[in-house]
Amino acid sequence: MLKIGVIGCGGMGKDHIRRVTNKIQGAEVVAVSDVFEESAKAAAEICGAKVYTDANALIDDPEVEAVMIVSPGFAHVDSLLKAVEAGKRVFCEKPLCTTAADCLKVVKAEEEAGKHLIQVGFMRRYDKGYQQVKEALDSGNFGEALMLHCTHRNPEVGTNYNTPMAVHDTAIHEIDVLHWLVDDEYESAQVIMPRVTKYSHSELKDPQIMLLRTKKGVCIDVEVFVNCKFGYDINCEVVCEDGAIKMPQPMYPDVRKSAAVSTTIDTDCFVRFKDAYDTEIQAWVDDAASGVINGPTAWDGYLASVTADALVKAQETGAIEKIETAIEKPAFYC
Amino acid sequence: MLKIGVIGCGGMGKDHIRRVTNKIQGAEVVAVSDVFEESAKAAAEICGAKVYTDANALIDDPEVEAVMIVSPGFAHVDSLLKAVEAGKRVFCEKPLCTTAADCLKVVKAEEEAGKHLIQVGFMRRYDKGYQQVKEALDSGNFGEALMLHCTHRNPEVGTNYNTPMAVHDTAIHEIDVLHWLVDDEYESAQVIMPRVTKYSHSELKDPQIMLLRTKKGVCIDVEVFVNCKFGYDINCEVVCEDGAIKMPQPMYPDVRKSAAVSTTIDTDCFVRFKDAYDTEIQAWVDDAASGVINGPTAWDGYLASVTADALVKAQETGAIEKIETAIEKPAFYC
Amino acid sequence: MLKIGVIGCGGMGKDHIRRVTNKIQGAEVVAVSDVFEESAKAAAEICGAKVYTDANALIDDPEVEAVMIVSPGFAHVDSLLKAVEAGKRVFCEKPLCTTAADCLKVVKAEEEAGKHLIQVGFMRRYDKGYQQVKEALDSGNFGEALMLHCTHRNPEVGTNYNTPMAVHDTAIHEIDVLHWLVDDEYESAQVIMPRVTKYSHSELKDPQIMLLRTKKGVCIDVEVFVNCKFGYDINCEVVCEDGAIKMPQPMYPDVRKSAAVSTTIDTDCFVRFKDAYDTEIQAWVDDAASGVINGPTAWDGYLASVTADALVKAQETGAIEKIETAIEKPAFYC
Amino acid sequence: MLKIGVIGCGGMGKDHIRRVTNKIQGAEVVAVSDVFEESAKAAAEICGAKVYTDANALIDDPEVEAVMIVSPGFAHVDSLLKAVEAGKRVFCEKPLCTTAADCLKVVKAEEEAGKHLIQVGFMRRYDKGYQQVKEALDSGNFGEALMLHCTHRNPEVGTNYNTPMAVHDTAIHEIDVLHWLVDDEYESAQVIMPRVTKYSHSELKDPQIMLLRTKKGVCIDVEVFVNCKFGYDINCEVVCEDGAIKMPQPMYPDVRKSAAVSTTIDTDCFVRFKDAYDTEIQAWVDDAASGVINGPTAWDGYLASVTADALVKAQETGAIEKIETAIEKPAFYC
Repeated sequence: MLKIGVIGCGGMGKDHIRRVTNKIQGAEVVAVSDVFEESAKAAAEICGAKVYTDANALIDDPEVEAVMIVSPGFAHVDSLLKAVEAGKRVFCEKPLCTTAADCLKVVKAEEEAGKHLIQVGFMRRYDKGYQQVKEALDSGNFGEALMLHCTHRNPEVGTNYNTPMAVHDTAIHEIDVLHWLVDDEYESAQVIMPRVTKYSHSELKDPQIMLLRTKKGVCIDVEVFVNCKFGYDINCEVVCEDGAIKMPQPMYPDVRKSAAVSTTIDTDCFVRFKDAYDTEIQAWVDDAASGVINGPTAWDGYLASVTADALVKAQETGAIEKIETAIEKPAFYC
Repeated sequence: MLKIGVIGCGGMGKDHIRRVTNKIQGAEVVAVSDVFEESAKAAAEICGAKVYTDANALIDDPEVEAVMIVSPGFAHVDSLLKAVEAGKRVFCEKPLCTTAADCLKVVKAEEEAGKHLIQVGFMRRYDKGYQQVKEALDSGNFGEALMLHCTHRNPEVGTNYNTPMAVHDTAIHEIDVLHWLVDDEYESAQVIMPRVTKYSHSELKDPQIMLLRTKKGVCIDVEVFVNCKFGYDINCEVVCEDGAIKMPQPMYPDVRKSAAVSTTIDTDCFVRFKDAYDTEIQAWVDDAASGVINGPTAWDGYLASVTADALVKAQETGAIEKIETAIEKPAFYC
Repeated sequence: MLKIGVIGCGGMGKDHIRRVTNKIQGAEVVAVSDVFEESAKAAAEICGAKVYTDANALIDDPEVEAVMIVSPGFAHVDSLLKAVEAGKRVFCEKPLCTTAADCLKVVKAEEEAGKHLIQVGFMRRYDKGYQQVKEALDSGNFGEALMLHCTHRNPEVGTNYNTPMAVHDTAIHEIDVLHWLVDDEYESAQVIMPRVTKYSHSELKDPQIMLLRTKKGVCIDVEVFVNCKFGYDINCEVVCEDGAIKMPQPMYPDVRKSAAVSTTIDTDCFVRFKDAYDTEIQAWVDDAASGVINGPTAWDGYLASVTADALVKAQETGAIEKIETAIEKPAFYC
Repeated sequence: MLKIGVIGCGGMGKDHIRRVTNKIQGAEVVAVSDVFEESAKAAAEICGAKVYTDANALIDDPEVEAVMIVSPGFAHVDSLLKAVEAGKRVFCEKPLCTTAADCLKVVKAEEEAGKHLIQVGFMRRYDKGYQQVKEALDSGNFGEALMLHCTHRNPEVGTNYNTPMAVHDTAIHEIDVLHWLVDDEYESAQVIMPRVTKYSHSELKDPQIMLLRTKKGVCIDVEVFVNCKFGYDINCEVVCEDGAIKMPQPMYPDVRKSAAVSTTIDTDCFVRFKDAYDTEIQAWVDDAASGVINGPTAWDGYLASVTADALVKAQETGAIEKIETAIEKPAFYC
């Protein structure tokens, strides 16, 4: 039984508490913390855990073997450094940290500690569809990947959602999962701004087409369209030298009605990736036994941050922006 | 230029006149006939043809090289016998005749005349989808056909449409095209009567499942559902020893809207089989040059009649009814 | 923690032991039994359980709160009656018993005990696809179900597989899941025998088309084709008054290669229904808390037995055979 | 009967002669010309036409009412100017001319002549799939188009095919059909060069991603991949404010075999667009009666030339290149 402490008891935190309590084998939540005591108490009731208002105290609790960081992004860095110091295994919701500099600090801390502790919450790697595409790619039957055509479409977003959030809140998932898919790192970024949909507002250019090039020359286009109205629609096609692989859509019946045959498109990312969230946490728990991190590492979190920064810059300049890490990928992460 | 006389100037007759005039290469309508002179005159205006009220006079017209019989079914037999006597090539809309006895008379007349003259208007054999399935079957890549699963669905029918019409007006198309597809003849028929849809009425059992067995033992099920509401939906899957072949649906865009991806289903048989009608008539015209009938023959028309009779009997008895022709297939038709 | 004893430690038994141990929340295997002590010992090693060679002793073990019966079919009846007597919750792999008479004995025993204890291992009800179809049906958007078109195709079977096994081992799954889908019971059965595939042998008529009619008049056709070569291919389309619903196929990428776009078909039922098995057992464990059986009951097991008997008789007679239960459905099971 | 003279009797010329002779209603080929007399004679035999070796003489022939220019691209400009001078209707295979300057000369000549005479052979506008997408767009149900995602994939090309030919010979079809689809003109072009497939050679960067922006801000990406190996695969998805529309694939049966369900992809553009070629020529013939050009005009030919030049420049510079016409679109073409 992996004894988990959860930092951050908002909606997502409570989701993870429920998940660990009801779905995950071999783990339980023994402590929760939130700066708002009431939130922490409410969350604790789900699982019968100890209540903290100080994240560091929770990390120090000797009963806590592993930590889930689900606090607001700006608070991640302190908890991460503290947990690394304490030698405790971490699952940290994305983003790793809100700046590339902080991400790098965490990377260095983990490397110095010399122990693989941190997994970042990019759940798409655990989605069955992406895994099937990865498996096909890794089979060698398709030769090298050359291009990826992707979409990330949301039915709509709130009015506070602005242009850079199309990178930080939306494309961030593609940033992580796509370089993992082709086992490569990014080299440059560009953003194309089509005509804006009537459903957007002055602070949000929607849709956008984000272009990424990897070091091996794989060219990726991601349509990010957050007011597409018709659904939460994630697509990914990998075009290779010896064939092309298109990720399957979620399973729904084919319905014949009103002169059409139709299939449901999801409208909610938590429905679309429900199984991926469960699989992700189960894998993190299972990997604890052998002390490895098979999921996205702190380095992946840092890469995502650097890539996002380049994309946001590219949104502004319209130019092709380099994506450069401050240090070479440490051998520790290879 | 094949000079055609058209007998019967109702809706379907006028359709064929327009088709020959506007779409078909190498043919023209030179004469039309209808017992209602006004109808004949109206039709003649489409193509600038001579007008008859007597079908026999049209057949005797020396300018008329070939005859299209589009009159009501009961009138077919006389025109057919007359045309055979006159040695003129015939395209006869289905049914060949309204009774098996009359069909047989026509078969015998044609055989005696010793010349292949008659093609019956079962246009499905000219549909691209059925032809692709036939081509796959004939390729030998799938071994022998064992089963066919089919649907013939209409959005709705008029209140005068009754139970036997599900055979005579609807399944009649499957009766012809399916035995052609598997190059076989029928042995027995059964009809299963499911619960009746709320959209039907006391004179119409709808839907019905018609079961046919061929001499080689291929078992066919055809769902006939004429008030299915959602569309004119024709499906055909052939299950073979080495694979299964499903006829494609008509081409329509995939549309993403309202939390669904959907594709149009036709609602009208004339839209669904529009190209098949054109191809059918063009083929009949083209075949005139070499004096052959590659389409459905009088024998096929007779077979359809005998099979339809067995299905109607099976509708009443609920039993498995034999399908027997009064004579062996004449060598003339092999 | 539901403490489970597993009776029968063959392949399927060990599968269930692994499942409970590694995947299921809230349960553990505390005892296993097999007439072959070596098998029991090997299975016990998976989960660290007590070893029995006598099923009754396992049932009597006071630590065992619930029993999974995974022994050969003929042995089920004794363990079932014993478990009911002991008041212990049971999950019994299909078939409930090998004869309708034994099934009825179990039904009566459970009814007399007055406590819902037995769930039969028809896992298809827990398959996501069937559940989506059921949900659509229950939504009321499609009116009443009228027809079901189904296939149950296996790539191939061993040479000891014979004609009645097409019912007992194969169609048995459709027998259970389809009447549940339409919330109805069966009235009659018929089996149609198409031409036999070249891949079969003298003791096996393959394929077969099984026809079932429910009391409300829903007509079901199930193609059972166990040497179809191309895959384990389960299809189910429900045609209703206001539309038709087709169960989705399992998710696999669309692959473009060699002048074709293709999607994988499973070749193994344990892969195809892997998630269904997990969901089934989790549900059985979860339902223990409230002492209900939401899955297939002993009555469903009895119905399956009676229906299978009628189908086997219909295989021999070629006639429409009545499906009659010896008693009315007890109020206890409604 | 429109009396046609065909200039250029190579493979494509003979195709058009056969098409007019065997498929097209209301037209016949009365004269053919080729600088190689043998070619002209061979072509003339198909249709029994007069033979010329001088294109101008053919244009001057008073029997010739309309001209099809199927000569090599460099020879188009002279024939076009001559035909305009002679006031004869023209169908000119793509490209209109080999330079934008020549195209402009033709545009101006036609404008001065004051009569709509020239149609350019961009047949995709006549493809059923593109027409269905256009119809959906024009229905108003989808709001404004924002993005187009397209692929133009060939199984393979000859070794003389080089990087600029990816524009001139391949993407040229998208250049014409896409701006027609969204009823807009191009503003800028960019070309992205992914990693090169192992099946290419030093003179050919393959694949390429071509990006076009229209004046209204529609952003288009076209994957051009001419050694994709798996087929001739044309895709087009239009993402709009109120939904997305994906062009259907050609109709082929769904085949179940070898653990996969698969559908054929064409491998040849003449098979893929066979019907489009027929429809195109029939429309050009039909439009002759009313003296209009509903197909691609000389202006469209000029636009294609200017756009292709910008794309070729962009292939070299890697930058976003402006697409500018030397003159405003003349009112004559609006």
